[in-house]
Amino acid sequence: MEDQQVYTQVIELQGHIIDSMILPQIMDEAIDRGGDFVVEEFQIGRRKAETSYVRLELRAPSPELLDRLVRHARRLGAIVPEAEQVVTKPAPADGVFPEGFYSTTNLETYVRLNGGWTHVEDPEMDLGIVVDYAAGAARTVAISDVKAGDRIAVGHQGVKVIPLERSREQKEAFGFMGSAVSSEKPKATLIREVASQMRAIKSQGGKTLVVAGPAVTHTGAAPLMVKLIEAGYVQYLFAGNALATHDIEAAFYGTSLGISLEQGTQIEGGHQHHIRAINRIRAAGGIRQAVKQGLLTKGIMHACVTHGVDYVLAGSIRDDGPLPDVITDVIESQRRMRAVIHQGVDLALMISTMLHSIAVGNLLPAKVTTVCVDINPAVATKLADRGSFQAIGVVADAEGFLRHLVTELGL
Amino acid sequence: MEDQQVYTQVIELQGHIIDSMILPQIMDEAIDRGGDFVVEEFQIGRRKAETSYVRLELRAPSPELLDRLVRHARRLGAIVPEAEQVVTKPAPADGVFPEGFYSTTNLETYVRLNGGWTHVEDPEMDLGIVVDYAAGAARTVAISDVKAGDRIAVGHQGVKVIPLERSREQKEAFGFMGSAVSSEKPKATLIREVASQMRAIKSQGGKTLVVAGPAVTHTGAAPLMVKLIEAGYVQYLFAGNALATHDIEAAFYGTSLGISLEQGTQIEGGHQHHIRAINRIRAAGGIRQAVKQGLLTKGIMHACVTHGVDYVLAGSIRDDGPLPDVITDVIESQRRMRAVIHQGVDLALMISTMLHSIAVGNLLPAKVTTVCVDINPAVATKLADRGSFQAIGVVADAEGFLRHLVTELGL
Amino acid sequence: MEDQQVYTQVIELQGHIIDSMILPQIMDEAIDRGGDFVVEEFQIGRRKAETSYVRLELRAPSPELLDRLVRHARRLGAIVPEAEQVVTKPAPADGVFPEGFYSTTNLETYVRLNGGWTHVEDPEMDLGIVVDYAAGAARTVAISDVKAGDRIAVGHQGVKVIPLERSREQKEAFGFMGSAVSSEKPKATLIREVASQMRAIKSQGGKTLVVAGPAVTHTGAAPLMVKLIEAGYVQYLFAGNALATHDIEAAFYGTSLGISLEQGTQIEGGHQHHIRAINRIRAAGGIRQAVKQGLLTKGIMHACVTHGVDYVLAGSIRDDGPLPDVITDVIESQRRMRAVIHQGVDLALMISTMLHSIAVGNLLPAKVTTVCVDINPAVATKLADRGSFQAIGVVADAEGFLRHLVTELGL
Amino acid sequence: MEDQQVYTQVIELQGHIIDSMILPQIMDEAIDRGGDFVVEEFQIGRRKAETSYVRLELRAPSPELLDRLVRHARRLGAIVPEAEQVVTKPAPADGVFPEGFYSTTNLETYVRLNGGWTHVEDPEMDLGIVVDYAAGAARTVAISDVKAGDRIAVGHQGVKVIPLERSREQKEAFGFMGSAVSSEKPKATLIREVASQMRAIKSQGGKTLVVAGPAVTHTGAAPLMVKLIEAGYVQYLFAGNALATHDIEAAFYGTSLGISLEQGTQIEGGHQHHIRAINRIRAAGGIRQAVKQGLLTKGIMHACVTHGVDYVLAGSIRDDGPLPDVITDVIESQRRMRAVIHQGVDLALMISTMLHSIAVGNLLPAKVTTVCVDINPAVATKLADRGSFQAIGVVADAEGFLRHLVTELGL
Repeated sequence: MEDQQVYTQVIELQGHIIDSMILPQIMDEAIDRGGDFVVEEFQIGRRKAETSYVRLELRAPSPELLDRLVRHARRLGAIVPEAEQVVTKPAPADGVFPEGFYSTTNLETYVRLNGGWTHVEDPEMDLGIVVDYAAGAARTVAISDVKAGDRIAVGHQGVKVIPLERSREQKEAFGFMGSAVSSEKPKATLIREVASQMRAIKSQGGKTLVVAGPAVTHTGAAPLMVKLIEAGYVQYLFAGNALATHDIEAAFYGTSLGISLEQGTQIEGGHQHHIRAINRIRAAGGIRQAVKQGLLTKGIMHACVTHGVDYVLAGSIRDDGPLPDVITDVIESQRRMRAVIHQGVDLALMISTMLHSIAVGNLLPAKVTTVCVDINPAVATKLADRGSFQAIGVVADAEGFLRHLVTELGL
Repeated sequence: MEDQQVYTQVIELQGHIIDSMILPQIMDEAIDRGGDFVVEEFQIGRRKAETSYVRLELRAPSPELLDRLVRHARRLGAIVPEAEQVVTKPAPADGVFPEGFYSTTNLETYVRLNGGWTHVEDPEMDLGIVVDYAAGAARTVAISDVKAGDRIAVGHQGVKVIPLERSREQKEAFGFMGSAVSSEKPKATLIREVASQMRAIKSQGGKTLVVAGPAVTHTGAAPLMVKLIEAGYVQYLFAGNALATHDIEAAFYGTSLGISLEQGTQIEGGHQHHIRAINRIRAAGGIRQAVKQGLLTKGIMHACVTHGVDYVLAGSIRDDGPLPDVITDVIESQRRMRAVIHQGVDLALMISTMLHSIAVGNLLPAKVTTVCVDINPAVATKLADRGSFQAIGVVADAEGFLRHLVTELGL
Repeated sequence: MEDQQVYTQVIELQGHIIDSMILPQIMDEAIDRGGDFVVEEFQIGRRKAETSYVRLELRAPSPELLDRLVRHARRLGAIVPEAEQVVTKPAPADGVFPEGFYSTTNLETYVRLNGGWTHVEDPEMDLGIVVDYAAGAARTVAISDVKAGDRIAVGHQGVKVIPLERSREQKEAFGFMGSAVSSEKPKATLIREVASQMRAIKSQGGKTLVVAGPAVTHTGAAPLMVKLIEAGYVQYLFAGNALATHDIEAAFYGTSLGISLEQGTQIEGGHQHHIRAINRIRAAGGIRQAVKQGLLTKGIMHACVTHGVDYVLAGSIRDDGPLPDVITDVIESQRRMRAVIHQGVDLALMISTMLHSIAVGNLLPAKVTTVCVDINPAVATKLADRGSFQAIGVVADAEGFLRHLVTELGL
Repeated sequence: MEDQQVYTQVIELQGHIIDSMILPQIMDEAIDRGGDFVVEEFQIGRRKAETSYVRLELRAPSPELLDRLVRHARRLGAIVPEAEQVVTKPAPADGVFPEGFYSTTNLETYVRLNGGWTHVEDPEMDLGIVVDYAAGAARTVAISDVKAGDRIAVGHQGVKVIPLERSREQKEAFGFMGSAVSSEKPKATLIREVASQMRAIKSQGGKTLVVAGPAVTHTGAAPLMVKLIEAGYVQYLFAGNALATHDIEAAFYGTSLGISLEQGTQIEGGHQHHIRAINRIRAAGGIRQAVKQGLLTKGIMHACVTHGVDYVLAGSIRDDGPLPDVITDVIESQRRMRAVIHQGVDLALMISTMLHSIAVGNLLPAKVTTVCVDINPAVATKLADRGSFQAIGVVADAEGFLRHLVTELGL
């Protein structure tokens, strides 16, 4: 024991590292995991405008633990003074990363390449980084898209992650952020803020993505969504077969899952409406064709077609039919959603769809403001548990939320 | 076996006993429990306007089972042809019913007295019936209010219960009724119907009772409730210390449970606001006094005082303070709520309060239209499980529901 | 008005049509929808052993309403005395049913063919019926599998549905069935009954299908599931990428979604474990290969491979990876699950997976005993709302349920 | 602007103020609220064993903000170097605190009295502090118990609060603490830890308090609770009329709320069982008398009486009856629960009772390990929102949790 080996690594931190809790977290982690630290140099910002600087030696009894502590610190913005070039290995086969591959976060990331820091394109969590030495470029790559021989980053050497900087204004606006989700908190301010952002995005030519589940139609909120689309507040829609089907069912029969949207009661034979609606669209060749043929004349999907909203309908195993527009291969669906996101999204509004919210949350960069509306508080919690920590939870029913939002937008 | 004793009782049923499912239920129960039945006479209504009549002999291998089957049938409106006088026994002590006492339902009930059927005043579930032979009268009595020597009905002889007749119109309007509560159904029709009933009640001088939990203030919905009160849509308010306290906290400090209603964020020191608010009202002597002294100038409680809404604030063990207006004895609280209900209530609107909803549900006659709004679907289910089968569940957050209702009422 | 046309159709019902509520429902529907009825003949079973018979003329002011009433009555077992041959039309294109196609229920169904009643193979809801005149056979067909020219049943002529007959014993055992789902009811009896059925199925060489979500691994219940598999209580497993991935993550790293199953705490870097686990299995070529290579040595998937459980892993858009065993096309996934179900399933045990529960519920015949376990009462409600009315809801967490079940089975 | 007034206060902090996040929080608060700070002296602990020291000048543009910042810092353990004597004012009337009274937290608190720090007895949130100058003592006092003339602390001068120190071991054991409550996390470790604490408490003569709702009996978990009591693991029970009533109903009739605990089905007439059970106990004079008379022979309440568990049954407005043992005045109930807690409680186990959990949470010092079990994740969230931040949430049904706990304890 007395002769115990110690592994060490010096790291540096610069910035508001105390009031942003970054330094304490690094110290805490070291101690919690059985490591230690020595403060080599410390300059504290005497006033709020001044940044602080610390040079810290992390110490651990094993190289594995040291690695873990360094990785944790780097995730919080620490750099290793003598930055080394990113290390890569070739992918051993199509669809397989080399062992020890660097698994990405959804934060802005850079790799050390040729003495400089190269931005990694398309940040998204749980992917690999493919490095193009010739072009001096790097981008994320999904495991299903990696090709044998691609140079994939391994280890965390030469990889730098930028923690999400949250402006004071944003903190004020979305003060809910990070707090426990509760159905007992006032929502008016939050919805006002969402409306305000949507107006700003619209006026600046930005992009709002709506991710919506079938509860939007079941609760009778489709006309509210149509208003948002018609007023130009929605650029992209990600949904599944269910939303589109029940929306079209409502257009054809006035029901959603066989429940009359006017009466709120089950219609005899109504449980067949959705499958009949699907059949008609299949006969027409698809949603766009049905709109063109004058068959489909209202509803959310109609509004998407007539107002140029780019929609991606992703398949799921509970789908009836499905509609011809639905992408039945889930990996292909991810590719299509990724392609949309890579064009740039400013706000993601997820409404009453746990599956889609988590799926899209996985694909979004952390910097995209993400608002997750569900009557079940567990949805936002799950989203956060799965890495979409930036998501702001709103506990509300789809119809109530959209009604309020539409009013707030003056529609 | 062959020598097996059989106990029998003839019952009669008249009315829409087939399409109202009454006869099938009686038959089903008999068979399920190990009894039997013989149809002695059956006249079916040939058309929908005609009622049916059946005379049925219920058969059981034990007197206990026969008793159970007869009791079940009576609850559904069956009568025993040769109706006997109600049987009573004296209460053995204050606060104690005689063993075998008849336990009431929340349906309209009659007792056979001096050859006629006497209405039992103040229907409420789980009480006893006290018979006043001299006056030829009967009324329900709570166990805590019974006096030694009171003549209390025992057994089910001479007791007749009237099943809830639901008009076709009502069934249409509240088609949700009886169906599983779901957050996925359209609420607009239901809220429109609630609004329509509230308007009708107001125009006919009827009474609407609101039962509200603190989520009404936490979600920022107090101004909406104030609108309802100011427009004359609320005659009674049943709530607890929490609603009143946080409402007054909001009036004094702009927070509810320390959360700023404007910002939606926790205010430093804000968790003390409610206890400071309580202290001020205690110093003033009560809510009415605080309004009179010009100390309390807005909010729900202020509106109640200035618009003559009769409120009952019932205590609970989680109360801080409490406010001087709060009745700290729970049995006394029940007495006060009963006294209000006995004046006549046409609609009970229960918003975001499981405890109070169940408590008031226990006190209400089944004929009172009862709408239970909660973000948790379990609340309406629990209410129904506890006998308030007439309650219509709405899965919504308090603010969203009230916002929609107020809009629907044109306020 | 006085000259109003009336459309009529005589129907017949035979059986326990009163105590099974069938006749009342038909009468009720007629009146509710604005129709009428005349009882032409009625023989009531005088004792429980005797069946009843009724001949009823349904009357409606429009052919559409008459059609609706007849359809409703037929769904409940009514027959039209002069049974006509089933009517078919050719499918106009691959993947499209003819307009007016008969949409199936999940009940046993027969079509009138050549003067007899032909059983429709593979009952499943929301499909079409394809008739093979040459072979005198009929079976259900999914819209995605229909071929141009297939003879598809249209209208409801010559189609007979057998209502689910529930034995008294079953009613006793699963008394919960049909009642509102509640977290407040005793579960011990129900779990004992599930265990008893599983033992009976095992001893008779029957088949139990488990449908499981990743919460089974997240809650640390995988060892309990392994016990069930090892003891021969599970023949089929339907799951997604998530369950298999986190199960393998647990085998490799001792974590599930990065949470240590031993400690219950988040492991630094643990959020990458699942993607690393996926990568290793992709490198090995699949789960079976990983087991064969000695790479995967424990957990649910290992137990499935070593104990011959036939598993179907269906893809979803939230999948990372996915594992090579996952079927990424959702329609192909449905085909694979259908193929398993068509081999015969006696009990379906759905544990903590809303998506999969609804998806599999859609595929199952109503006669399969279906138990749906979830901590969220809404899941069973949704399942029932979507037509899987036979599903018995159990409000419990996955781990608690499986722990209790395993104890009950003496494992 | 240039002439702007600045209010300042020097504070000092000593300890692990960086890795415990205390210093960053103080800095963050100052900046967030529009104040500022100047670090006057800073000695950082170079290694984990060393504590740090900082002297900081808080600066604010208004005395109100300065006061808020100082109060916040003090709550985190900061002291004002030149500590002044606590300030008191007389209570103006019975049941009324002086304006500006110091509102307590549930943390250990000291007041500056005669040059020393005097411990405030019975820490509990939202109370006042009454100072006895003659005895040199201080204790918390509820607003309902304050007497006119009592010397009550006002402002925060001379009041020091000790932040909860959490040992590393405890952090490991209860790693869930502070994290979002989720139904998807492994519970086995947590339950093992609860069992381990219960064993330790028992062997050291400590006290475990169980707070239980009626779901314990409804789910059939009463025999499990009885095992805990019989084995000496429960010293105190706080519950309401419902738990005791349904427990006694189960002892008398085998039902809970009329549901057979053996069959899980509704018993005809069973909804009356609870009121009949209450009546019998009222006739007997109370629970203890019923046990003594041989009337009540099993169940939780019987076990409490026969094993010396000190129980407090607190009334609620939804109570039927109530049982004679129920304290119907809620403020008196609080006094009785406080009296128990002041005897010392080491572990509070709250099972399936939102109302009671929050009520007792309000009364408990923060240092009491508090475990809150509920099937609804919102309960633990609400508890934390209301100040019982130390509560550890377990999302589970009552029966499943107790079954597992009892097994873990080897009972």
